[in-house]
This record gives sequence, C-alpha cells and structure tokens, in this order.
Amino acid sequence: MELGMIGLGRMGTNMVLRLQKAGHHCVVYDTNQETVQGLAKEGAVGATSLEDFAKKLKKPRAVWMMVPAAAVDTTLKTILPLLEPGDILIDGGNSYYHDDIRRAADLKPKGIHYVDVGTSGGVWGSERGYCLMIGGDDAVVRGLEPIFSALAPGIEEAPRTPGREKVGGTAEHGYLHCGPSGAGHFVKMIHNGIEYGMMASYAEGLNILHRANVGKQKSTVDAETTPLRDPEHYAYDLNLADITEVWRRGSVIASWLLDLAATSLLDNPDLAKFAGRVSDSGEGRWTIKAAIDESVPAPVLSAALYERFSSRGEDDFADKLLSALRFQFGGHKEKTAPQKEAA
Amino acid sequence: MELGMIGLGRMGTNMVLRLQKAGHHCVVYDTNQETVQGLAKEGAVGATSLEDFAKKLKKPRAVWMMVPAAAVDTTLKTILPLLEPGDILIDGGNSYYHDDIRRAADLKPKGIHYVDVGTSGGVWGSERGYCLMIGGDDAVVRGLEPIFSALAPGIEEAPRTPGREKVGGTAEHGYLHCGPSGAGHFVKMIHNGIEYGMMASYAEGLNILHRANVGKQKSTVDAETTPLRDPEHYAYDLNLADITEVWRRGSVIASWLLDLAATSLLDNPDLAKFAGRVSDSGEGRWTIKAAIDESVPAPVLSAALYERFSSRGEDDFADKLLSALRFQFGGHKEKTAPQKEAA
Amino acid sequence: MELGMIGLGRMGTNMVLRLQKAGHHCVVYDTNQETVQGLAKEGAVGATSLEDFAKKLKKPRAVWMMVPAAAVDTTLKTILPLLEPGDILIDGGNSYYHDDIRRAADLKPKGIHYVDVGTSGGVWGSERGYCLMIGGDDAVVRGLEPIFSALAPGIEEAPRTPGREKVGGTAEHGYLHCGPSGAGHFVKMIHNGIEYGMMASYAEGLNILHRANVGKQKSTVDAETTPLRDPEHYAYDLNLADITEVWRRGSVIASWLLDLAATSLLDNPDLAKFAGRVSDSGEGRWTIKAAIDESVPAPVLSAALYERFSSRGEDDFADKLLSALRFQFGGHKEKTAPQKEAA
Amino acid sequence: MELGMIGLGRMGTNMVLRLQKAGHHCVVYDTNQETVQGLAKEGAVGATSLEDFAKKLKKPRAVWMMVPAAAVDTTLKTILPLLEPGDILIDGGNSYYHDDIRRAADLKPKGIHYVDVGTSGGVWGSERGYCLMIGGDDAVVRGLEPIFSALAPGIEEAPRTPGREKVGGTAEHGYLHCGPSGAGHFVKMIHNGIEYGMMASYAEGLNILHRANVGKQKSTVDAETTPLRDPEHYAYDLNLADITEVWRRGSVIASWLLDLAATSLLDNPDLAKFAGRVSDSGEGRWTIKAAIDESVPAPVLSAALYERFSSRGEDDFADKLLSALRFQFGGHKEKTAPQKEAA
Repeated sequence: MELGMIGLGRMGTNMVLRLQKAGHHCVVYDTNQETVQGLAKEGAVGATSLEDFAKKLKKPRAVWMMVPAAAVDTTLKTILPLLEPGDILIDGGNSYYHDDIRRAADLKPKGIHYVDVGTSGGVWGSERGYCLMIGGDDAVVRGLEPIFSALAPGIEEAPRTPGREKVGGTAEHGYLHCGPSGAGHFVKMIHNGIEYGMMASYAEGLNILHRANVGKQKSTVDAETTPLRDPEHYAYDLNLADITEVWRRGSVIASWLLDLAATSLLDNPDLAKFAGRVSDSGEGRWTIKAAIDESVPAPVLSAALYERFSSRGEDDFADKLLSALRFQFGGHKEKTAPQKEAA
Repeated sequence: MELGMIGLGRMGTNMVLRLQKAGHHCVVYDTNQETVQGLAKEGAVGATSLEDFAKKLKKPRAVWMMVPAAAVDTTLKTILPLLEPGDILIDGGNSYYHDDIRRAADLKPKGIHYVDVGTSGGVWGSERGYCLMIGGDDAVVRGLEPIFSALAPGIEEAPRTPGREKVGGTAEHGYLHCGPSGAGHFVKMIHNGIEYGMMASYAEGLNILHRANVGKQKSTVDAETTPLRDPEHYAYDLNLADITEVWRRGSVIASWLLDLAATSLLDNPDLAKFAGRVSDSGEGRWTIKAAIDESVPAPVLSAALYERFSSRGEDDFADKLLSALRFQFGGHKEKTAPQKEAA
Repeated sequence: MELGMIGLGRMGTNMVLRLQKAGHHCVVYDTNQETVQGLAKEGAVGATSLEDFAKKLKKPRAVWMMVPAAAVDTTLKTILPLLEPGDILIDGGNSYYHDDIRRAADLKPKGIHYVDVGTSGGVWGSERGYCLMIGGDDAVVRGLEPIFSALAPGIEEAPRTPGREKVGGTAEHGYLHCGPSGAGHFVKMIHNGIEYGMMASYAEGLNILHRANVGKQKSTVDAETTPLRDPEHYAYDLNLADITEVWRRGSVIASWLLDLAATSLLDNPDLAKFAGRVSDSGEGRWTIKAAIDESVPAPVLSAALYERFSSRGEDDFADKLLSALRFQFGGHKEKTAPQKEAA
Repeated sequence: MELGMIGLGRMGTNMVLRLQKAGHHCVVYDTNQETVQGLAKEGAVGATSLEDFAKKLKKPRAVWMMVPAAAVDTTLKTILPLLEPGDILIDGGNSYYHDDIRRAADLKPKGIHYVDVGTSGGVWGSERGYCLMIGGDDAVVRGLEPIFSALAPGIEEAPRTPGREKVGGTAEHGYLHCGPSGAGHFVKMIHNGIEYGMMASYAEGLNILHRANVGKQKSTVDAETTPLRDPEHYAYDLNLADITEVWRRGSVIASWLLDLAATSLLDNPDLAKFAGRVSDSGEGRWTIKAAIDESVPAPVLSAALYERFSSRGEDDFADKLLSALRFQFGGHKEKTAPQKEAA
C-alpha cells in the first residue's frame, strides 16, 4: 500500500527503505531536501513541500510522522489543513500518551484518524525490524496492517512461544494493536521504563565486578574511610568483555542489551570513551508518574531513573547538605577526591 | 575424559547425560540409589558408596559435586579421606565464594585441587547447555576444558560479537575461567544479582500495565485515599501475554527472561497459579554485601532483593509502625483491605 | 482581627479555639450544625448557612476553608457568589499546589484574593501550635499576619538558631510566607515527602532491631531458604520501647516523630493493634512527581512511598510474575507462608 | 566513682570533663601527652604511659577506650597484660558489634569484663549529654551506672513519654543496657542507619525545594533533554534557611537534625562551602548487612547509603556503561556538562 512519511532522520529513512523493500510505495518529505532526494533515488516519491506531499498521496491518505516528540504538535498543525476526512495521521515517535489522547479527541470531529505507534529498535531496526506498539481505532489500525507487518521483524525472528500456535494474533509477528488512542505509546513508555531498569541492573552488576580488586589497593586509613574488613575477598581482576560474552550463551540473563554490553566492553574495556553523563528522554519519567497514579510500587525502575539524574550532578545540592549536617553534628570535614580512577 | 559426579538431582543428572552424549565417561553417585541405577542404564558407571565411587575413578580423579550449597562442606568432608594428591574437586553448585577461598586454601596442603564453577541454565541447561563461570588454578582448569566445553552451549548458540573473531577465547563458547579460587562463584553471584534486577524490572513494568485500567474502577472517596486526578488516562485493558510476545522481536528489552514471561502469561494471564511469595537463594544477598564492601552503589539490585523480602511479609512490623505513627500524629485509622483483587 | 472558618472538623475546630484564646473573633460554619453550636458556646459566632456566614463577616472578608482537599473546589464554587472584590479566600487544607495556581488565576479577575496555607501539626496543633507555610500576594499575606501569628507555635517553642537574631523574620515564630500562589502548599508537600522518608527510616531501623533475634529461631533448611551463616550474631531480644526512649535524649536522631514512636511502642510493644496497611494522602506522590519534573534524584523519598503501596498489597501482581519466572527457569515451587509471626 | 579514659580526642576529653563536673574521678591517658596535661590541669590524674595508667587506677579497674574503631584491637592488646581479673574494659567508640562478641568471648576466660557502649552526641555531647547504648553482662553494667548516668543527658532533657512514669527504667535518663555483648553497638549501628535515612530525607526534600525555580530557567531543546511540560509549576525562588526554620516549630518533621540544617542554611544558603563528597563511616553499611541477614527490607536506608557512595563518584563505571549501551542501541551521544551550577 501507500504511505507518506514526514521526517527522514535515521529512523524515518530506514523505515522507508524497509517498506519499499517489502513492495510498499512511499511518498516522503523532510525540511532537509537532500535526504528527500536521497530517498527518491531509492524509489520513493519525493515531495518539495507539505502541500506537494499532500497532493502526491492517494486518498484517503496515510501519513506517518517520524519527528521528535517536541515537534509533533507543530507538524500536525501544519499538515492538518492539507488533510481531508478519512485521512490517517500516525505518530511513530516518542510522544507522551496524554498527548495522543488529546490529539485523537481533537482530530475526531474533523474526521481525521489518529494512530499512535511506539517504535522500538533504534539504529538496528532497518536490519532486525521494528517492534511496534499501536494505539487507535480498530478499523483504522486493521487497515494499516500491511505497513506494520512490513516494518515488524516477523515471526521467524524468535523461537515460537509454547502454546502460541493455538492463539495466533499479530504479536508474534512483532506488531500489536494494544488498545485505544494512547495505548501504543503507553506500552512503549513502560517498555522504556523496563529498559532503564535492565540497563541499570547490568551497570550495577558490572560495576561490582569492575571493583572486585579493591582488596588489592592500598586503602586510606582515616576516620572518614570505612576500612575493608576482608581485603582477601576482593582480589579479583576480572575481564568484563569475557564475562559479558560468556553470559550470552546459556545463562538466565542473556538478552539483546547484554549483546550490546559485550560489544561495548570488547571494543573499549574501561569505557574511557564515555564520561558517564546519562541522558533520559522522558519515557522513564512518565513510567514512574504512571506507577504513582496507579499506586504501583516501582522502586527498581525509579532507582534506575534517579541514577541517570545523579550521573548528571543533579544530587549536588543534596550531597552538600549531607556534608553540612555531618560538619554540624560531628565536626566532620569533607575528604577531597582521590586521584581520579584511571578510566 | 572421565568425570565423577556426586549429586544426581535434576541438574547433576542432566549434566551427566549431556557429557555422555559428547562422548565423556561418567562415574556417578547419589545417596538415592535409584537415580544412580537410572543413569547406569544410560551408560554411566554407578557407584554404591563413596568408597566405591572413589575406587571406580581413574587417577588423578576429577570429582564434580552438584549438591545444595548447604551440603557441600559435609560432602567434601566425607569424600576427602578417599582422595589423593593430584585429584580435583569441583563445586558446581551455588556456594558462597568465601567458602571457595577457604576450601581451596584448606585443600592445597593436601595436594587436592579445588575448582569452583558457577553454573547457569536451570532446568533448560540439558537442552541449551550450561553457562559456566570458573575459578581455580590455571593448569587445573585447563585440564578440565573438555568437560566444560561439552557442558557449555557452544559458539553457535548466539551470533558472534563484532570483533570477537580477533580475540577468541573460550567465553564465546559458553564457559570462562574467570580467575583464582572463588572467582567462578563470584561472577555467578553477580549474575544472579543482575537477574534479580532484570526480573524486578519486568515485574514492575508489567504491574503498571496490569493496572492501566484503574481509571475505570470506582474509586473510594475518603480522607485516607488519594483520588486519581485524571482517570481518563488509565482506561486501558491491556493483554500482557500479547505485549510480552510483541516485545520478543525487535525491541530493546528482548531477553530470555522475557521469553519465559511471555510463556507464563500466555499460559496463565492473571498468574492466579501463584501466591506471590518469592524466595531468594543467597546470591542476591551476597551481591549486595559485595557492593557495600566495594562502596559500589547498587540501588536497583537492592530494591529487587527487598521486593522479595516484602513479598514474604518481612515488612509487616515496619508497616505497623508507620500506621502507629500516623495514628499518633494525625489520628489516622487504618483502612481495612478492600475486596481482594480477583487474582 | 476577624476570621471566618468553613469546616469544623478536628483541625478547623481547634484552630478556632486557638484563635479565640489569642483574642481573635471567629465566624464559623459547617454543614454539621452541632459543631457550629458547640463552638458558638465557646464564643464564636455561628452561621446557619453560607449566606448567613457571608453576611455575618465584616468586609473585606477573610474566609479560611479547612475542608478535605477533594471538597475545596465545591466549597469555593458555593461561597464565591457570596464574596465581593477585596475579600480573601484561604485554603488551609492539603490541596495540590497546581490547584492553587489555577484558583488564584481564576479568582484574580474577580478581585478575590486567594491564599494557600500548608498546615502541619495534626491533632497536636491546638496545644503545640501549627506550623504554617503560606503562598500568595505579599500585601494580602501581610494583612493576615495576626491570624498566622496566633495559630503558629511562637518563637519560644524551640531554642533560637545561632545567627537568627541578626536576620529575624517570621520563620522562627512558626509561620512563613514562602512565595506566590501555590508556594505554601508546595513547601507543605515537600514537608510531607520528607515526613514519609523519616517515618520509613525509623520503621526500617526498628524492624531490623525487632528481628535481631532471628539467630535464636529454628531456621528452615530447604533449597528455597537462605541459611543464616552466623546465627550467633542475631541473638538479641531488644526492648524497642526502651530503645526509642533512650534515643530521645542526646542522640542525633531525636525528633518529634521519635517521641511518638516511643509513645506507641510503650503502649503497644508488638504493635498488634495495627494491621500494617498504610495509607498515603497525595503529598508523597506529588513530591515524587515534582522531583521527576525537576530532575532531582529522590530514591529515599520514593522508596518510602512505595513501601506504603506495598503494605496495601499493590505489589501482588509483580510478585506473582517473579514466582512465575522462577518456576519457568528453575522449576522453583513457591513456599507457603510460615505460621504467622505472633504479632 | 573512678574511671580510666584512654583516648583524649574531642569525644574522650569532653566526656572526662563532664564526668568530673558530676563529681567522678578520672585517670587519663593519650599518646599525645599535651592533651593529658591539659586535662590534668582540669583536675584529672594524668598518666605518662599505659603502665602508669594501670598503676594509678584503683582495682577493680574500669577502663574506657575512646579510640577510633580501627585502633581498638591494638589498644586492647597493649593494655590487656596490665589488667587483672575483675577489671572492666569499655569500648565507647564505633566498633562493629561482631568485634564486641569476639572480644568479650576472648576476655571472659581471663576474668576481664568487656562492655560495649554506643555513644551518640557528637561534638554537642559535652553540653547536651551523651545518649548511651550499652551491651554486656548485667552485674558489670549495673556497677557502672554512676558513670553512665553522669554522661547521659538526664530525664529533664525531653518531655516525659506518656505512661513512662509507670515503667521507669534508665532509658528516659539517656542510657540503656540493651542486652549482652554487642547489643550496645548493634543498637548504635541501627541508630546511625536511621540517621542516614533521615539525613537523606531532608537532603532530597531540600534539593526539590532548591530546584523549584527550574521553570524559570531557559531549557535546552534537543533530543537528549526531556522538556519540562509545565514550567509555570516551577517558578518558585524559595528561601531554604527560612523554610527549615519554620519547620522547627509545630511541624511533624521537627528534629535535632533539622535544627542543624536550619543553622547550616542560615550561615551558608547555597552550601558553597561544601563540595558534596559525603563520607560514610561503617555503621550505615553494617546496618544494611544486618537487614539482609535478617531478611528485613531496607530500601530507604540502602538508598541513603548509596547516595553517599555516588557522591564520591563510585557510580562512574556504571554510568559509563549506560552511556555505552545508549550509544550502541540508539547512536545517542553523551551531552557535555552545562555550565556548573553557580554554587
């Protein structure tokens, strides 16, 4: 079928290529005309403006926006006057699901269908396919199945879940209509929340392995340092590239993220390429807010989020207050930083 | 080569079968003679007593103990008088690595080699192979490679890590000599600590999805209940079996544990088979103790451990104190439990 | 000066009594006319309806609402038509500060001033005085100082902070104009967030003391139970009433909450009066949402909130999933609950 | 009565002064003879060596060691040959209670009594008195009551707990015999664990208040930064010195630590004197280890401990791994640090 794609960053471009490879027809637009022309060479129909884009699409139009979350409302406002009742607007980015609910309600009276699609797969999606979590009206979503099916990894990408043969459904093909408007991004949001927790689990565990030789280091002796009681228990120099590699086969914690960790640590064993300032992009935060609204305890996912905040120094003032209190009640002076860990 | 196996539970038995399939020769012993005879029918040499077991093994002997952590020291004490200098004693269970360090030191003057092997794979190991994390002396571990290699999943079990071809090593075959005595169980311990964190990440995330319809429920209106400000944001009835299934392909959080979650939720969508009392078997605790000794922050892994404690009611007294304080300062009366969630 | 009070629950009633004792004049209203008549006997002017209430107040009116957060908007809607430009509406309850910002903006064009007051003190306020955190316009707040000053505990309630004599201000008198609309409830919200953290700190610590005799208990020996390695380290039968009492004098953790804990534990050493289902009333949740919006790590305050959720069984589904996964990968069967702790 | 004091740091010196003021007689020793002579001028009997110290003390001797935890065993070894059966050795420092249990058992056959005393009060103890948590044999502890009573703050230091008049005991005088050897330091350890939790509660809460004006700051717009949805909710410039001051009177979170926070923030509103590297001195760690051994969930106290680790950069490697993973799956580049917060 035909799909219009607005936003030809790495994600949008790769998705167009994957769709065309599957025999679909794409009309593409981006403010950057070079990428438009690039894709035109690969068989897509390039548009020079949104007006041109709208004109070139067959009606009813299916328009997929693959733009930053912050740009969705602006894009939507610009394209809206060019659309007609029956057209479908798809947000494939990382919108907050509250916005999906609002947008769908706003567009309904105008006869425009709104579909939210949480898309996982990152830079690997063009190769592995994209995991798609979809929200919107039944009939509209059903009509887009050829597109979703082409973007998704397909059933052969993983061994079949026992019993799934009796149930069927699209989930095992890698795309799923999760529920009404917002449901797609809601499920994607929780997906990312879980991702934060898993990443932090590996990061903390590997940090413990990384420091398993502290017993061999000369420890400071002063009133502000807790001495290690049994240094002989921490005399291991461990090879983290090898350890993450060995876990990839047969262990309980094998995962795609572990595959990436093994690659990173093989390439850069001390991770010195990185400073350790970890961004967070919204979904982790929204996950915790949803947990709180639902009264669901989420200590692990919260701790994972806060580690990212702390990595960016957001705990500075709190830490200073702790030092101030220790000085007040015990006269404790702060220790200066030791020679930096040779990263 | 030849290996003696003591302890023919599910793990020990499966390992013997896997070794024999690979052409190795096993002498087996268990206090339960039925399982001994069962394996004898499968080609193993059965022993009627530890004396018989020691006699039947070629020297220098390689003896693998696959017994509960609490039984290792007793087993070791009983077999020790039957061993001779040059023999190898392998602990393949879940020992605390402190015990490995002690045992290796105790056995060294007697000329007995001690090797600790952390073994991951659970009930699936016979099929997938076992991920082996090994501690002990170089030469001794090297001599056992045929055994490790046969038990491990093998290189073809996962796609090759980019760059690994230049490095080689046994890690990508699924077994790794991690370091001196205790290193195997140390790495296995952290493996399990990470496992706790990953499991909790999925559990918390899925709980948030599970409760995504709270906005549709009639909420209590009283001073002790926080009203949900925007119930329309929590009106999703989500199918968790489908969601875990769709994440298995193309998503960032695909993993073996997710495969198992998809299986569980397909089979038993409301998990009513389970009461939710979650045991913990030591490694999670030891992981946190190691983190603390090393001054490594581990909030995620700790929270995961504590969730298990709480699931068994270990927070009861603390919670009562909170209620007591609320009563003291605000006259707050405890609310009684609502009708139990239809599990 | 004169103040009108709507809402004569325990808080409202006590505040009226305290104001009158300080020589202020109160007009009071509640849907429950009995409490109105009760206060009338104590010197207040009772009103039979909101109309009557508005009529009896001198202009410009100062009206204090002391009603549940959920009832503020309804109360406000009912009283609004009876008010005139220049009147002041004070919300002394536990409103979400977002609502304060909205209400102040709504009332401004009507010439009605809105003041938000976070009030701490609970059932003890009539005796100790109330700690008041105030948001609103400067001139309006200043005009209400006689009221705030009478409600607050007063400077003699605590020893003077060194250096405060050079700074002065109302803070040391127990009331503070924190900032524009919402600032009062914002500060009160964080106050309660901190309260959750402190309460949980005591509760966790006391739970560890409570269980300091686990080494004397017969422990289960099975694969699902982690054995205690050094039971001789946990052979203490501690008297928690005495311990909380001793901490009240000279220790670093002395506090008003500790005073209450000592009272509770003296009266009811095993806290058997309580079931341990701990409610939360909104401020703790809003505190975490604010932390997330500001990128401030708040792992301690979050954990305290989640403990309350868990105390009410909100982790059930998550725990069941953990049990399901353990069954899947290791064949682990759940253990049934032991005989309940004799509480 | 007479007491020998070894270790004349700030704590030891102040305790001697307080004891002498109460009419007790002190023999004092320190490797620094200047402090010995200083106290001699205040009425103590100075000793030039441990031999001299032992000689000058009446038998049976009562010797109080007030030395760093790491120095206790050395001190004990040196003094031991000079002691005789019936003498009492008191450790008033911050020993791990495991060491108390070991030492008491070692000394028993020699007829030397060992008493462990957890001492809280910090630099303020000379004025406020010391809160004493005591472990050891009944008769021995009872014999030392005049000393404990003189060091403790005394009953008038806090209002009486309702009902305490019927129970009595020493707790309300500020000292308590908690149980057998180690019980004193066990209770002190948990005391400090709670202290960490309370300090972190204030620190996190105040950090949220500190950042309550983020909505007024120009926020970065890029894919790596989560935009603040409602900046108008974070437009407060709050005075933390005033806020901590107002909470000191009438609020639920009044405490001695809050008094200190108010002092710190008045003196140094932005806490620029401090770098925020927060030491931890053992008790917090041991508290968590005890919680784990007892299966008691302690997420709040753990998070408080980990914040201190993180403040010293111990999360660096973990954070780098998070950045490495984000780069792997999403091509995310790390953002550089913004201009440092003007502290």
